[in-house]
Order: sequence, then structure tokens, then C-alpha cells
Amino acid sequence: MKKAIDFKIEKKLEGYLGRAGILKTSHGEILTPSFVVVGTKGTVKSLTPEQLKDLGTPVVLANTYHLYLQPGDELVRDAGGLHKFMNWDGPMMTDSGGFQVFSLGVAYGKELSKVVSVTDPSLLIPERSTVEDGVPRLATIGNDGVSFRSHIDGSLHYITPEKSIEIQHNLGADIIFAFDECTSPTENDRYQEEALSRTHAWAKRSLIKHKELEENKTEFPQALFGIVQGGRKEELRRKSAQVIGAMDFDGFGIGGSFAKEDMSSAVKWVNEELPEGKPRHLLGIGEPEDLFSGVENGVDLFDCVGPTRIARNGTLFTKSGKINILNAKFVNDFNNIEKDCGCYTCKNYTKAYLSHLFRAKEMLGATLSSIHNVYFITELVKKMRQAIIDGTFEEYKKEFFHEYKK
Amino acid sequence: MKKAIDFKIEKKLEGYLGRAGILKTSHGEILTPSFVVVGTKGTVKSLTPEQLKDLGTPVVLANTYHLYLQPGDELVRDAGGLHKFMNWDGPMMTDSGGFQVFSLGVAYGKELSKVVSVTDPSLLIPERSTVEDGVPRLATIGNDGVSFRSHIDGSLHYITPEKSIEIQHNLGADIIFAFDECTSPTENDRYQEEALSRTHAWAKRSLIKHKELEENKTEFPQALFGIVQGGRKEELRRKSAQVIGAMDFDGFGIGGSFAKEDMSSAVKWVNEELPEGKPRHLLGIGEPEDLFSGVENGVDLFDCVGPTRIARNGTLFTKSGKINILNAKFVNDFNNIEKDCGCYTCKNYTKAYLSHLFRAKEMLGATLSSIHNVYFITELVKKMRQAIIDGTFEEYKKEFFHEYKK
Repeated sequence: MKKAIDFKIEKKLEGYLGRAGILKTSHGEILTPSFVVVGTKGTVKSLTPEQLKDLGTPVVLANTYHLYLQPGDELVRDAGGLHKFMNWDGPMMTDSGGFQVFSLGVAYGKELSKVVSVTDPSLLIPERSTVEDGVPRLATIGNDGVSFRSHIDGSLHYITPEKSIEIQHNLGADIIFAFDECTSPTENDRYQEEALSRTHAWAKRSLIKHKELEENKTEFPQALFGIVQGGRKEELRRKSAQVIGAMDFDGFGIGGSFAKEDMSSAVKWVNEELPEGKPRHLLGIGEPEDLFSGVENGVDLFDCVGPTRIARNGTLFTKSGKINILNAKFVNDFNNIEKDCGCYTCKNYTKAYLSHLFRAKEMLGATLSSIHNVYFITELVKKMRQAIIDGTFEEYKKEFFHEYKK
Repeated sequence: MKKAIDFKIEKKLEGYLGRAGILKTSHGEILTPSFVVVGTKGTVKSLTPEQLKDLGTPVVLANTYHLYLQPGDELVRDAGGLHKFMNWDGPMMTDSGGFQVFSLGVAYGKELSKVVSVTDPSLLIPERSTVEDGVPRLATIGNDGVSFRSHIDGSLHYITPEKSIEIQHNLGADIIFAFDECTSPTENDRYQEEALSRTHAWAKRSLIKHKELEENKTEFPQALFGIVQGGRKEELRRKSAQVIGAMDFDGFGIGGSFAKEDMSSAVKWVNEELPEGKPRHLLGIGEPEDLFSGVENGVDLFDCVGPTRIARNGTLFTKSGKINILNAKFVNDFNNIEKDCGCYTCKNYTKAYLSHLFRAKEMLGATLSSIHNVYFITELVKKMRQAIIDGTFEEYKKEFFHEYKK
């Protein structure tokens, strides 16, 4: 069995858990920490793979749940795997589908992202039931797996850890994830413990299935990352990191729908327990403040739909904070988004042109904005990496937040 | 006054009016005959200028009417002109707004393209009135100009030939058009004659205004093309070509909303009258059969929204005719659209992937389809040019239609 990935720590961040490393996959290497761009349905919305490479994207993550339903993982396998299907020959990841099951289940109908604020009551999920406000959930969780209805055609599906791994082998990404249960930070202790036992049992089953499928592979071996869960409680987070960390995974994901206030401490607890020599991926996180705190606390990889999703609504990252290009003041602003930004959009277009594209509902607006935002976040994490290597991380962070306002 | 364009005929098509030429503008040269891609609002929908260059697009046409309303021609002027605003440094054209006035006026509420079939009664415009089925037209035509309401916010506007030229000078394209009245092929003779007198008077006024604005220009001179109208009647078409052809234009547009059956004869009549040494542009035409007939009958330039518009609905050109990628049989078709097509899409993606993108409503579907269709039509006209030079035009046409079915 060929080794799927190779991870080497190049430099540690003194006084913290952070580190700069190199993660080698059979489709190229990723310098960590690194931001992973999300291409949910086998395409990063509005961008070609060449545009992604041109802006410096090292790795793309696609969603197992979405591709399983449409166009189907077997079709992707028959097409020669997801790399070939979507024309991305660089490193690639797929998630396990656990988060989607969460958002179709207990979180169904809530406007939930990976980070929720527990001070906003509308986002709380106070109790579990199979019906929310008269709307039946689309997913129910059992100890063996999860049954859910397709959000596309209502058809019934059943996913077990073994099934999730099979799907991810059909898709063929370089790094795949164990099937887990993502819980809300507001679930009670008893439920968190129950869910965590399931996640641990599913991790083991995922690993067994993965090894079985991996055994006879001759090319493009896949790496499996286990996922640490445990909600807001230190005890559960540390326990989960110990249990998952002791299993023979190639790396680890840190999962959960986080309360903003808890995230950095949860990440720190987990990374204090996980084996140091393996890569760690914080799932679904991409705001600048969370990226700095994640890197500081020992995270190597981050993925998030945020930068591309907000771009499609005209929201753009700048060094002083986010702006929305639909704001009237940009109509005749002939400067680019950021004076010294090196992205294709800033090198060639003005805010006035972007404003025109969004007002005229032209698709190029989404493309140009996505290029800028992905470049901004990708560069931000690259600069954190360089700062770790140069021993200037704290200065860089201070300098960044001196200007950047949330 | 610097010369705006230079046109040289390289080779004539024996026994026909057709010719291969070179048209030089201050933003580069166009080998004619050539297909002109339409970027209505200052962007070719879903494509970057680099993608257009990569597929071999020589020249882009934007719509004066749309840009006048949004973002406004003065804003574009203040941005440094349309080339800079939209990041297109190659040859560029703008139309005069005449066709849009037609579609907001007498044709308002009709699903009209530049080519109508007079055998389809639903597309006929049997009589003129200011109200169609209870819906007031958005435009009314007077001898001095046209008043119309914006389709965006209902605001009232008045365009004269002088105003159209001013707008087009603010936009700054290399080739611009005189303001004209586009009539329906089904209008009666009296109306056609009236409209034609207006078009001729407006042509003269456009030319005067253009020369006045051009006089003191030091860089990027603009060329003005006069537009020939005249509906279906040979007498009017020839007369219009003589009148417009005698004026000091740099080239000519052939306008009108054509009945499919009439187009090739109308084009022939016109080009038999127009001065041979100046370029001719057939406005708004882009179907393969019309391109062959246009080239044969002496047309040098064609523009059309067709290839990109149908692409966004998943309709793709192939050598055997059009296909729609949403057809069930393409779901697991792992071939590219055309076996030996040299476009980016065919070199990198399968029909199964395109089918997935359209079913999943992913924006990349429009981009990849537009690239293929624009490449197909651009190459088709380039091959016609080569066939004229090689003396194999008739064989090429025969060969093409042996396989291609409308």
C-alpha cells in the first residue's frame, strides 16, 4: 500500500501550537497552513480551474453529500474520478457528508453556518424533535447511520460510515474524511456524549472500510482524516481528540458547528491532544479572525464557502474590512478594490466596473469578486505561514487587525 | 485627423461578391470575414476578456442603448472609455441603438430577433399603433429622433442622431454606427419609404456630428459606419445602398429585421451597390447558414448574441447541428462536445460534466458553453476566409452542410 500523504513540520510558532509545514499528496503539495477553496458540486462557483491556479489556490474541497445526490458518485467514478471530471489536477479533498446531515436534520430550516453566535436566540436549537415548526426534518440519525431525503427530489437515502467511505473512494479525492455526527453547540450534555460515542464508533468503521478499499490500489492512494467532535465542553473535546488521535488516521478534521466564543478554546484543547506530526483541518471556517486563531492554535488547513458565497452577493474583503460593491459610493469609484492587491480583478478592473456588473446582474461580477475574495483569504493564510517561518507572526497579526475591522 | 481604419481586400471569391480582407483599427487588426462577439453591457456574458482572446475572438461589439442607460456613457468616458472600463484592448464596436429602439417600439412585446420568419403569424407586426394589446410601446419615433422609456426604471429619454454619436464618442469604440430606424419586414411600402428617408437624413446628421467630434482628436480615432435599411424591397434596398454608399462613411452596416427568406437577396442587392473598397457589417446575424450566405454576398463582419444566448440555455453547436446538453442521453456521455474541436471546453471537459453543471445550475456551465459556441462560430467564419484565399469556398460550404442540419 503506497503512502497517501506525507506531512513535515518546517517551523513551529514559539509559545503557541501553530506550525508551518509541507503536505505532499499524489496530486501535488500543499504548503501549510493553507486555505482550501470549496467546490461543492465539483466546481468552484463561477471559476475555472485555471482561474483558481492563477490566483494561487493550492487545494479544492468538494462535498460528498452533494455529489452523491447529483450527478452520483458512481458516475464520477466512471468519468475517471473527480479530478478528471472537473479538470482539477491539483490536491483535492472531499468532506464526509456529516455536516450536511446535520443541516438537514436538527438544524433543518435554520440559517446555520459553521459558526453561530449563542447570543442570537434565533439561531439556537433548543430541543430535538423530528418536526420543527410543523416541518419534518429531512434527516434522522440512528446508531448505524443516517437516513435522509434528498433536497433535490425528495428520494430517500441511507448513509452509513462504510457508505460514506465508498462514495469518497468513487470520487477519488486525495484526502477524505471519516463519517461523523456534527452537533449544535447548544445541544445538552447527554446528547453531546451520545453523539460523540457515535462519531467515535463511526470513525473506527470508516477506517476499517477505508483500509479495505485502499489495500489493492495501485495508483493515487487516498488519505483518511478522522474527525474530532465534542461540542463546547473541554472534557468531551479532549476525550474525542484522544480517541480519534489514537486511531490510525493520516490526519484529523476538527468538526462542529461552533459558537464563535468557544472556537479558539475548543481548537486549542483538541490540538493539545492530537499527535503533533499529523495534519489538522478545521472544517468550514474562513473568517480572518478565525483563521489567525486557528493557525495560532495549531490548525494546518481550513475550508470555507464564505469567501465565494459573499462574493456572489457583492461583498468583498479589503484590508480594512468587508465592503459591499452595491453601495452607491462605488458607482463612480475608478480605483480597484485594493490599491496593492495582486489579484487579476484588482490588476484589471475598477470598483465602478464591478458596481456596474452587479447592478446589471452580469455573471462576470460573481467571477471577478470570487477571484478577489479567494485571493485575499488564500494570501492571508500564506502570509501567516511566512510569518511563522520568519518569526514575525505576532507582529503580522497585530498589523493586520490594526487596519481590519470585522 | 488621423485615419481611423484601413481596409484592404486580399482575395475575392470568384463569381460572387465575397472577399477576404484585413481591417486595421487603432486597437489591432481584424481578418475579414470575421464574427464579432456581442458584449451588450460592456461584458460578454460569463466570459473574461482573456477567455475571449484565448478562443480567438478578434473584436467585440457593445450596445449603445444599454450602456447609455446603465452605467451611463459619461461614466464610461470618465473611466477612460469602454476599452479600459471592460478591460478589452482589442478592436471594439458599438451599435447605434436603432435596433433597440425598434424592439422597444413597434416590436415591443414581440419575441423578436433579427431574423423572423414571415410564415410564423405570431411574429408578424400587422399594423402600427402606439398601444399593442393594451401595453403602451416604450418608444415613439419622430422625424428628429426617438423618445423612449428606460426598460430599467421607466425614465424618459430622447435620442437624436447627434445624441447617439455623442454617446458613442463617450464610449470610444473603434467602429461606431450612424443612428438609423430599423423596420419590420412586414411594414407596408409607405412606411418603409418614410422610415428610409428618416434613416438617410439621420445618416447625414450622424456623419456631420461625428466629423465635428473627430476633428480635434489626437489618439484613438473612431470610424463611422452608415447603415443601409429598406426592408424587403429591391428598389428600396438598392436606393438606400446608393444613398448611404455615396456618403463619406468609413464602412457600412446592413440593418433590418429580416425575413429569413429575404436576407440573402437583400444583402446581395445592397452589396452590389455599396463601394467595394469599404468594409460591410451585417448587423445581428450569426446562424451558420446566414453566415455562409452573407460571406458569399460580400459581407465582411457579422455580430450576433445568438451563440452566447443559446449557450446559456445549454444549446451547443456541433458539426452535425445543435444539441441541448440537458438531453437525458448526455448525462453519462464521457465524450467532449466535438471530437476534434480545439476549444478550451472540448479539450478539458465531457458532455457528462456539462450536463451536470446545467442540471446543478452551476454558473460554470454558461461559461464553458459560451466558450464552445463562440469558438465554433468564430472558427467557422475563419475557415470561410481561408477557403476564399485557398479558392475552396464552394467545396467547404458543401462539405459543411453535408453534415450540418439546421
